[in-house]
Amino acid sequence: MRITIIGSGNVATHIAAAFANVGHNIVQVYSRDIQHAAMVAYNVKAEPIDALDAIDPNTDLFLIAIKDDAIADIAQKLAKYGKLIVHTSGSTSLEEIEQYTPNAGVFYPLQTFSKTKELDFWTVPLCVEGATADITKQLEELARTVSNNVYRVNSEQRRILHLAAVFACNFPNYLYYAAGELLREHNLDFSMLRPLILETARKVQEHLPKDVQTGPAVRNDEKTMAAHLQLLAQNPDLRRVYELLSQLIIKMDNGGTAGA
Amino acid sequence: MRITIIGSGNVATHIAAAFANVGHNIVQVYSRDIQHAAMVAYNVKAEPIDALDAIDPNTDLFLIAIKDDAIADIAQKLAKYGKLIVHTSGSTSLEEIEQYTPNAGVFYPLQTFSKTKELDFWTVPLCVEGATADITKQLEELARTVSNNVYRVNSEQRRILHLAAVFACNFPNYLYYAAGELLREHNLDFSMLRPLILETARKVQEHLPKDVQTGPAVRNDEKTMAAHLQLLAQNPDLRRVYELLSQLIIKMDNGGTAGA
Repeated sequence: MRITIIGSGNVATHIAAAFANVGHNIVQVYSRDIQHAAMVAYNVKAEPIDALDAIDPNTDLFLIAIKDDAIADIAQKLAKYGKLIVHTSGSTSLEEIEQYTPNAGVFYPLQTFSKTKELDFWTVPLCVEGATADITKQLEELARTVSNNVYRVNSEQRRILHLAAVFACNFPNYLYYAAGELLREHNLDFSMLRPLILETARKVQEHLPKDVQTGPAVRNDEKTMAAHLQLLAQNPDLRRVYELLSQLIIKMDNGGTAGA
Repeated sequence: MRITIIGSGNVATHIAAAFANVGHNIVQVYSRDIQHAAMVAYNVKAEPIDALDAIDPNTDLFLIAIKDDAIADIAQKLAKYGKLIVHTSGSTSLEEIEQYTPNAGVFYPLQTFSKTKELDFWTVPLCVEGATADITKQLEELARTVSNNVYRVNSEQRRILHLAAVFACNFPNYLYYAAGELLREHNLDFSMLRPLILETARKVQEHLPKDVQTGPAVRNDEKTMAAHLQLLAQNPDLRRVYELLSQLIIKMDNGGTAGA
């Protein structure tokens, strides 16, 4: 397939590489900054461009991977070529493109990407939605060329997935940070927590979180929780986090076994 | 070394196996339930016992891996043998054993264990503390026979580590659960989130959490946060979590780059 990438951020970089790796033809990479466009384009042997006037209409798909609030504007400008246009955003509806063209879809990777970190794209869940059944099928087939985890997801479900990703990714990462700050105040290094963090994520690869919940709250170990709150006496922010999450863990409908 | 294991839970099971694997002699495994003792003892070719009267004094180390509030009582009963006694608890001071014998120490693994899940013990951070410099050195040497991550940690630091582990393990696992509940309400499966959860934990194996924080809060993307809070209108508990953690992420001293 001939694919044009709009954007040069983390998502654009990883998706362009994944497509190129399996033999799709990346025609052009557009960014307002030509150097950013060039960085992505170079690896996938595409032409970098920084003006929409320079768009090559000889493509099958425009894939828009830019900030949410800029998607509609770009889609409007690309609609005249009559080609399929998709965005990659979790929190943006199909309608943002469909208002300008019926050749509209969504290609949402449910993953966190870093430019500097390689990852196995085959494991990335790809959530596709088309404005028509044909488009959905076409996007599903395209997604299957680069991932083993392809899902048909409508705009409402995608909004929920994006929200759930905040709970499963952004908030845990903040808690890693908070844990590291506690250590730092006592001259202990964040690296001590790394094996625990990784194992906690590994556990739920095979189990459900409810079945592997551990810690003082799930045991309703009031003595330990009181001692922890005492240690947080000088840190009202983390004390609030501790109290709220412990209360909710105690409320969990826990059918699993609490371990170490 | 001849080692007697007191306890038959997750920590006892994994530590006994790690010691046996590198050639230490597990003499006995004690549990109040002889079948539980037998399950652990069988794998490490030790004698299972369910009465402290049956203790074989011909050992070098009593390793107590039981509930925190039962440690002191057991330590008192084992003190008469004059052998080294250690516990494995993050939230229990050395004093709980030292009050009965100067041959006291702590051997705290900073990891979450499941009976059903194998893990590479070499990566487990082991935090040792002895009542004397000699005991600390002895425990450090013992720890190095089974792990590449051995730390000298005093009782105050260990309390902080245990608290930090709640933030780095127990609370993230609850958030995985919360994310899964959001999906379940919309007929989406928790398995969709697994690659994201694993990648989030992998990212901080090489980076600091602060440098890889992503999501609407760190971008101060008020439109997306408002939409997420709207989606949580019927779920006051998770709405409180969303509001509190987003506020704290916005407050983070963020020097990193926010990605996808």
